[in-house]
Amino acid sequence: MFEKPVGMRDLLPAFYQYKESVREKMVREIRQWGFQFVQTPTLEYFETVGKQSAIAKEKMFKVLNQNGDTLVIRPDLTAPIARIVASFSNQFILPVRLAYSGNVFRTQQREGGEACEFEQIGVEIIGEASVFVDAESISLLIETLKKATKSKTKVIVSHVGFLDSLVEENVQDLSDQKEHKRLLYSKNEVGFKHYIEGLLLSPFNKRNLLTLLSLRGGEEKLDEALQVITSAKGKESVYQLQQLWKQLVDFEVEDLIAFDLKMMNHMDYYTGIFFEAYIEEVRSPIANGGRYDELYKQFNKDFPATGFAIHFDRLTDHIKELEEPKKPLSILFSDAKQKDAIELAKQYRKQGVDVVLQHIKSVQDLPIYRQQFEDCLILRDE
Amino acid sequence: MFEKPVGMRDLLPAFYQYKESVREKMVREIRQWGFQFVQTPTLEYFETVGKQSAIAKEKMFKVLNQNGDTLVIRPDLTAPIARIVASFSNQFILPVRLAYSGNVFRTQQREGGEACEFEQIGVEIIGEASVFVDAESISLLIETLKKATKSKTKVIVSHVGFLDSLVEENVQDLSDQKEHKRLLYSKNEVGFKHYIEGLLLSPFNKRNLLTLLSLRGGEEKLDEALQVITSAKGKESVYQLQQLWKQLVDFEVEDLIAFDLKMMNHMDYYTGIFFEAYIEEVRSPIANGGRYDELYKQFNKDFPATGFAIHFDRLTDHIKELEEPKKPLSILFSDAKQKDAIELAKQYRKQGVDVVLQHIKSVQDLPIYRQQFEDCLILRDE
Repeated sequence: MFEKPVGMRDLLPAFYQYKESVREKMVREIRQWGFQFVQTPTLEYFETVGKQSAIAKEKMFKVLNQNGDTLVIRPDLTAPIARIVASFSNQFILPVRLAYSGNVFRTQQREGGEACEFEQIGVEIIGEASVFVDAESISLLIETLKKATKSKTKVIVSHVGFLDSLVEENVQDLSDQKEHKRLLYSKNEVGFKHYIEGLLLSPFNKRNLLTLLSLRGGEEKLDEALQVITSAKGKESVYQLQQLWKQLVDFEVEDLIAFDLKMMNHMDYYTGIFFEAYIEEVRSPIANGGRYDELYKQFNKDFPATGFAIHFDRLTDHIKELEEPKKPLSILFSDAKQKDAIELAKQYRKQGVDVVLQHIKSVQDLPIYRQQFEDCLILRDE
Repeated sequence: MFEKPVGMRDLLPAFYQYKESVREKMVREIRQWGFQFVQTPTLEYFETVGKQSAIAKEKMFKVLNQNGDTLVIRPDLTAPIARIVASFSNQFILPVRLAYSGNVFRTQQREGGEACEFEQIGVEIIGEASVFVDAESISLLIETLKKATKSKTKVIVSHVGFLDSLVEENVQDLSDQKEHKRLLYSKNEVGFKHYIEGLLLSPFNKRNLLTLLSLRGGEEKLDEALQVITSAKGKESVYQLQQLWKQLVDFEVEDLIAFDLKMMNHMDYYTGIFFEAYIEEVRSPIANGGRYDELYKQFNKDFPATGFAIHFDRLTDHIKELEEPKKPLSILFSDAKQKDAIELAKQYRKQGVDVVLQHIKSVQDLPIYRQQFEDCLILRDE
């Protein structure tokens, strides 16, 4: 066994073909919504794209090029696409809808852990700040996942502004605020409760903070949220979520939506509505997305933007609707029949049949050889 | 303008779509010949794959991982596929026909020179030594290139054993032998002639060596080649080329074949028949291929193998048959018509039309916006 590096994988023919067929359906759906695919290079300057990426710097593969510049093997695709749109802004008419399908790279933090190279399929809507495009993005995500799997999808939605405001309104101390978020980030609800109970806060503040834990569910949770928030910023977040809900009803995907206002965003560049998608079989999110209105400022443009990334490998590793790939035909021939075999193969291929031409003398075990094929035709001298 | 590293490129929507449509046709042809696609990781161990690759070590991008191992960003795909077939040999029934489409990486040796990341589409036939599969590989290459471009393809064929034998038979001194090959490698025919004339060789030896320069053309050149070669190894090379010619006639591609026995192989792992393909508009070869019967020994297997790699970017950068990609439809709407617009978009998409949904308030300049689309439907309150 010759080794490949930790976190790297090989795709053998059956799985390759399976992934390709799933990808094709998803790409088709994304194109139907008018998104245009682009491709960015695998290597980028650390200074240009690496620093702007939402991925932790220590998770990036770094490479030195011959000029001594530090490059990164791209850790995500949102930052490179921002580089493209900012650089070629005269070639894009905003708002622009872009899509990608490509591998990203992250160093592994623990042995036997996650993949270091994995594929993401995603979209970005750049140049529009309206809640409508957030709804469009979530609806497209749902329709795209439907094309990939029969598993039920659930999209969990929140808003960066709500949690930020609620914590700021009820906790004075900055390090206490941080600790709240850290506990929510690690989904430690028990710890969160204990921590709040131990703080020197008014019962009113404590109740507001603890309410957070129950703000998961349907549209009605947004009304409850409005009752515990006072700042304009906090209220505006909830209004945006209410508007989003209406749009998602128009898109007829509301059955697959839940709000969870205690959810922490895992990408620090999100600035507004953000979401995670799950399918039944998988604990980790199958997609992430949200609004990031600040990123383009790093590229000297003031473009609002929103989008999502599907963890394509996480998805295809778990959905179990693998169709047996269509097997080709094999035409086996002896020396004397070689020309006939070539001719016959040509005819079958013209009809769309995949055909392996194989000299019979190189087949060691015919019954085993046969297994790979739909059928074997043997042409040999009588 | 935000920079990307030297030798890296962005694919904007129109060119992305164009490449995709060309790739699709080529992949379809390769599949019709019964080849199965596999995918290998972008990063490999230098010790395992880097060292076995035919690419010069100083042209590889090297990366250290967290364990301090040296990785390479794959410089080619033949060596990684050999790693796969050797490692999973129980999952493959030989002879096996594999294919790939993926990016490879080479550091740039000079400013403003070649791409550092470029796509190759190729095949490998592993486990069969017969000349028939070399003919199959060349014929598949020709048919695949036909799917990509209307430009006339020419495949130039030679055999490693012929040139080696001719030089060994006529030149004693090892460093003189090397110099001969160096001059041929750099296609310096004038230098080659001068060099031979200056050597202390018999007129017989000199004539044999100079004959090499005229051994370019059709099948008849193989008869001429037999007259200047004496060793069994040298003669066997020509016999193989004669046999190859007959097979290529059976495949009906002989019109596009020329022999050129002074051609030097650019990959030192070739061991037998090898070839380069050209299209009219491009000076550099658009594909390389050949037999490499020694590589698998590095992976503890004694598998003969042959294959080719198409320089896909070199091809698509030069063929000028770019079809205008099909433009989507855009449905523009006002607030009151949002639900109608969503419904209408759904209906069009069901019919296979690509539709961008766009709130009209975010469109800054309608005449400019329109240009991107096949048509714009505007739904607004009367």
